[in-house]
Amino acid sequence: MTYAALEKTFYRLAQLGHLSAMASWDQHVMMPPKGNEARSRAMAELSVLSTEILQDPSLEEAFEEASEDTELEPWQVANLQQMRRRWQSATAVPKELVEAESLAASRCEHAWRTHRADNDWASFEPKLAEVFKIQNDIAGALMDALGAERGFKNPYDALIDRYDPGSSTQTIDPIFGKLADELPGLLQRITERQNRETSPLAPSGPIAVEKQDRLSRRIMELLGFDFEAGRLDVTAHPFSGGVTEDSRVTTRYDENNLVEGLMAIIHETGHARYETGLPRDWLYQPVGRSMGMGVHESQSLFFEMQLGRSKEFVRGLAPHLSEMLGSDSCFEAENLHRLYTKVEPGLIRVNADEVTYPMHVILRYEIERDLILGSMTVADLPERWNQGMKSYLGLDTHGNYKDGPMQDIHWPSGAVGYFPSYTLGALNAAQLFAAMRRQLPDIMNDIEAMKLERVFSWLSEHIWSKGSYLSYSELMIEATGEPLSSDYFLNHVRQRYLSEEVS
Amino acid sequence: MTYAALEKTFYRLAQLGHLSAMASWDQHVMMPPKGNEARSRAMAELSVLSTEILQDPSLEEAFEEASEDTELEPWQVANLQQMRRRWQSATAVPKELVEAESLAASRCEHAWRTHRADNDWASFEPKLAEVFKIQNDIAGALMDALGAERGFKNPYDALIDRYDPGSSTQTIDPIFGKLADELPGLLQRITERQNRETSPLAPSGPIAVEKQDRLSRRIMELLGFDFEAGRLDVTAHPFSGGVTEDSRVTTRYDENNLVEGLMAIIHETGHARYETGLPRDWLYQPVGRSMGMGVHESQSLFFEMQLGRSKEFVRGLAPHLSEMLGSDSCFEAENLHRLYTKVEPGLIRVNADEVTYPMHVILRYEIERDLILGSMTVADLPERWNQGMKSYLGLDTHGNYKDGPMQDIHWPSGAVGYFPSYTLGALNAAQLFAAMRRQLPDIMNDIEAMKLERVFSWLSEHIWSKGSYLSYSELMIEATGEPLSSDYFLNHVRQRYLSEEVS
Repeated sequence: MTYAALEKTFYRLAQLGHLSAMASWDQHVMMPPKGNEARSRAMAELSVLSTEILQDPSLEEAFEEASEDTELEPWQVANLQQMRRRWQSATAVPKELVEAESLAASRCEHAWRTHRADNDWASFEPKLAEVFKIQNDIAGALMDALGAERGFKNPYDALIDRYDPGSSTQTIDPIFGKLADELPGLLQRITERQNRETSPLAPSGPIAVEKQDRLSRRIMELLGFDFEAGRLDVTAHPFSGGVTEDSRVTTRYDENNLVEGLMAIIHETGHARYETGLPRDWLYQPVGRSMGMGVHESQSLFFEMQLGRSKEFVRGLAPHLSEMLGSDSCFEAENLHRLYTKVEPGLIRVNADEVTYPMHVILRYEIERDLILGSMTVADLPERWNQGMKSYLGLDTHGNYKDGPMQDIHWPSGAVGYFPSYTLGALNAAQLFAAMRRQLPDIMNDIEAMKLERVFSWLSEHIWSKGSYLSYSELMIEATGEPLSSDYFLNHVRQRYLSEEVS
Repeated sequence: MTYAALEKTFYRLAQLGHLSAMASWDQHVMMPPKGNEARSRAMAELSVLSTEILQDPSLEEAFEEASEDTELEPWQVANLQQMRRRWQSATAVPKELVEAESLAASRCEHAWRTHRADNDWASFEPKLAEVFKIQNDIAGALMDALGAERGFKNPYDALIDRYDPGSSTQTIDPIFGKLADELPGLLQRITERQNRETSPLAPSGPIAVEKQDRLSRRIMELLGFDFEAGRLDVTAHPFSGGVTEDSRVTTRYDENNLVEGLMAIIHETGHARYETGLPRDWLYQPVGRSMGMGVHESQSLFFEMQLGRSKEFVRGLAPHLSEMLGSDSCFEAENLHRLYTKVEPGLIRVNADEVTYPMHVILRYEIERDLILGSMTVADLPERWNQGMKSYLGLDTHGNYKDGPMQDIHWPSGAVGYFPSYTLGALNAAQLFAAMRRQLPDIMNDIEAMKLERVFSWLSEHIWSKGSYLSYSELMIEATGEPLSSDYFLNHVRQRYLSEEVS
């Protein structure tokens, strides 16, 4: 087998990926309840089949041959590297461990739904411990197989690498450390400041779902979403799925919560624009796919947090709200902006504002790192959680497991190493937005006029069109001139929430 | 490989079939237009992959070993036979011919859309000739590889076998011959009789799509459709898709044509009840799948023609129309029944009533048989069509290619051998309905009261729960006591349309 044969194999995997993406979208959006057992079987078989394709013994020789091919174009060299990454990851963990992971995760996730509702930590703990035990084994296997080549310093790095290639405890520790040092102080000043002001007005009454849906479609169009190449539907949990040529965005509506619905749409459209903006020349090849979760989340948060909650965007948006929802003094730009930038520490990560959100993530990062590296056990988790929430956000979670360490689906479903991406994405977004403003000094005027084409072109040029051609750090350096730092995010918080002019 | 290994292979194929069914449903119902290229690629790859699995050289030995396994249960023996059928069909036609078939079909079908609109036979003819040339080659290949084992008497039999295993020119010729002899005379008497009566009332005005949709759901529920295990959506061409555990029915609504929409729903629900009623113990194995198209169509036509247009069903249905659509004298049972049983020769097969429909099919059957067996060429087709329409239905189609030999998608898309199934289905349906009435003498009272459980149980016992366990003729003999004949259909026509009491 040659490089061309590898391309053919990964083309096949991409087509299976298409079917998996669509089957998963359907499962969440369209499927009737009794269809779930059959769907799960079909998707499991597809996943086994993809793994078998990647584990085909002939691939080893193919990679050897291809690595000696001197005729490859630069994009093919990058593609080969991405192919190798997927292949290595699929072969590094023994089959039995993959099965054990899937089994323990589905068992724990299933139990979690009941135990969480019952606030029953005691019953949940052994199942979660089993998940972490297996994650530990997987981390060890990945460390052994790939540690040297990928530069893992510890087994937790191997787990982070599954979700956000290019990130590690080495890159994250200093960045999160600085946030943990500075954010609590900033948070205190921000809440004191906001408490001195009158509360922003909320909408004067419920807003019909149909009206919110029409508004959402208008906003998606303003954000460049092509409804000839995608759909918007309603689900319990908003997500962005589908494929590059056929984007499937979902959201949920609450008659009494316009703010949340609106920002969910902007967030998911950010994910969707990234996927639909990937390089068409490399469709169906790994180098043409999106980067890890830290970059993906940077696009949704660029849209939602940097662009969507800017004063200028809100000024541009306000007339659309009045036009489509009817006039309400709540929809005046100044008030809307205050609604969208209200800061308030709370127990639940997914409801958190952008200032307190990183503290939720840092707490989870520290805990999962220490669990994997062995300096704490699952039994210590509630106490550690309580301490963290107290010191980072001043909140007590004693005995409240449901809104404490049991609130997220990530750990019960086996996603250990995923959490850091959220905050890395927020930092990337702030750094990218700052770079765009430097490079396009008058861009905020465009944004206020809702002329967003230059924003999209900038993102397309620096992020979307790159696929996985560059490494994470190359991507950030090419786009912003420097590697990821927490400075831009902290400056952004000072500017937006404390009106401090920072250089 | 043993029998168990074969089961595993066919389990995998069934899961790929699930993904294909859902991707195809999505393509017709949900997919935005620009998603089509990517979807076509994914589905083509899935199809290649399934063929590769079936063409794996190790299967030959597996079938040999399994055939010597004396421990198999009866259902496993039947399953092995069905597996062998699929495997043989997938290996009988050379790869290049399969590719040529797909290419010629997609080229001809594409051209057909334009040429049909333009009534342009001259441009269409060479493309259709290419399709028939390849179908000829395929028929030859199938005849060579499977003719002896499957008892084909000629190459056209080999094409029929692709769609309706167990049917052949030998079984069809006498049945269609009798219909061709008797139906034209019956048709004349029926139209004379209906012309003497006043026309039935049509609805007094347009009926909103939303109302029709609510009514359709009510009717599907009356017909036992489980909305917890299926959906109803809108498409350009109604179909029934999905999988056994997750049935996807589609329909279309026309504000000015309630009759068509209603009967389309009943028809598609018949297909859906068959698929959802297949034996759950054999899910994912070939023996648990539906029989060929002649049996499938028998279920939709049992619902639509035998049950749905019976006086008793229409009496039971009428109050639901008045309740959900508002009162209208058109909805009185007697009038509705006359609307649903209006007979009128026309040019277009899909619009035909049940009395003229078989003549459309017989004409196509005779033409495709003669094209494959070489006694006519595609150049002769318009003249032959015109002659047939004149002698069977008294209609002139001279120069009207669009509503003549170019009206159907079947031939341009390469489906030669498919047409007979429609009329075989109608005959099966009449024979099954008559058998049910004999076995359950008071069943028409249940139907008038819209208590349909015993109808469903009868169908489930005799058809649905059998999957592919019995052969076509065994199935009919077990259910009705005799092999397929045209007598029950002809009697049904005499009773329903001429009020003749026939034994």
